[in-house]
Amino acid sequence: MISFIVIGHRAATTGDFKLDDIAGGAGRLDVLVRCVNSAFFLSHDIRREVVLHLCLSGGQDAPKTVRFSGGDIRYLNPDERSTASLIRNALLKKAPAEGEVRSSPGVYVSRMSFEDVVSQLSGRRFVYLREDGTDCREYDFPEDPVFVLGDDRDLTEEEESLLSATDPDRISIGPLSLHADHCIIVVHNEMDRRRA
Amino acid sequence: MISFIVIGHRAATTGDFKLDDIAGGAGRLDVLVRCVNSAFFLSHDIRREVVLHLCLSGGQDAPKTVRFSGGDIRYLNPDERSTASLIRNALLKKAPAEGEVRSSPGVYVSRMSFEDVVSQLSGRRFVYLREDGTDCREYDFPEDPVFVLGDDRDLTEEEESLLSATDPDRISIGPLSLHADHCIIVVHNEMDRRRA
Repeated sequence: MISFIVIGHRAATTGDFKLDDIAGGAGRLDVLVRCVNSAFFLSHDIRREVVLHLCLSGGQDAPKTVRFSGGDIRYLNPDERSTASLIRNALLKKAPAEGEVRSSPGVYVSRMSFEDVVSQLSGRRFVYLREDGTDCREYDFPEDPVFVLGDDRDLTEEEESLLSATDPDRISIGPLSLHADHCIIVVHNEMDRRRA
Repeated sequence: MISFIVIGHRAATTGDFKLDDIAGGAGRLDVLVRCVNSAFFLSHDIRREVVLHLCLSGGQDAPKTVRFSGGDIRYLNPDERSTASLIRNALLKKAPAEGEVRSSPGVYVSRMSFEDVVSQLSGRRFVYLREDGTDCREYDFPEDPVFVLGDDRDLTEEEESLLSATDPDRISIGPLSLHADHCIIVVHNEMDRRRA
């Protein structure tokens, strides 16, 4: 399994935003939906082995996590608007105090924070995408990596500290700093080549 | 200069589509706007050396080409909707019979077809992204490459034939077939590494 955690530092946690305004009113949800696209789409297929956690830290009802699971995902299209709609539907669902609830096939919502998700996945190897990390081409990918990325903002000191406690590997994807969704593409390409 | 040509086989050529429906009524314009994002965006910058030609072949007023020029682009944001809006503004502009007209800084529209664009760029090296091409990691990139990609559909026989007449290099980006915008990311990453 390949997991990604993307932190939406001010991303909406209630479903009352407009699909016309995901880059504004929804707290840069556009960045997160592009990460969904990058994490799952092949040309004519879905990456079934991928799980993506969007940790939403903004808005009125933070924290929440929307989890996309490639194994059972349905109704996923590559365009931003339709993915934002899946997330909105998840946020319109009443998230339980404990555990998660399914809003559509392969899409789940919970009240988990970034800290909760890290804790839940502890035992697996965390991989922090950092400009000063080891080049991904030189990196020995673990069996079931958990990649961690910020949205358009770096991790906060608190998030860094939480993640550091897991002793994560640190990898970079190349000489230039890229958007989170573009980093996911490069990482996938490198792992695809190792498996080929 | 790094040029990309992306063919929108049924993409709108008039500006009367809805920004809410770019994946539907606008003829999979969503694929093309994601290519704009991939071609130009760095984390905190724009790739100034890039020029992207979207050859639009669908709708009532085909063919048209919308050209994005990194050197003078403004008002470009990473989300799909705002880029679709730049393209719609270009298509609402009266395209001249000859030459191109600017619709906003760095965005130009013309009545050029794919054939016209290929002809205009002849003299430069064309690079055709194909699953059966040379691995891009083994490829000796030319100085001013012109990369050619289809949208969500392969090139038609006629387009293939036009392109073949330029004797293009053929490169692949990895073992799996990816969306056009994802291919652009991988190609950029490889070129970034060569220049670093």
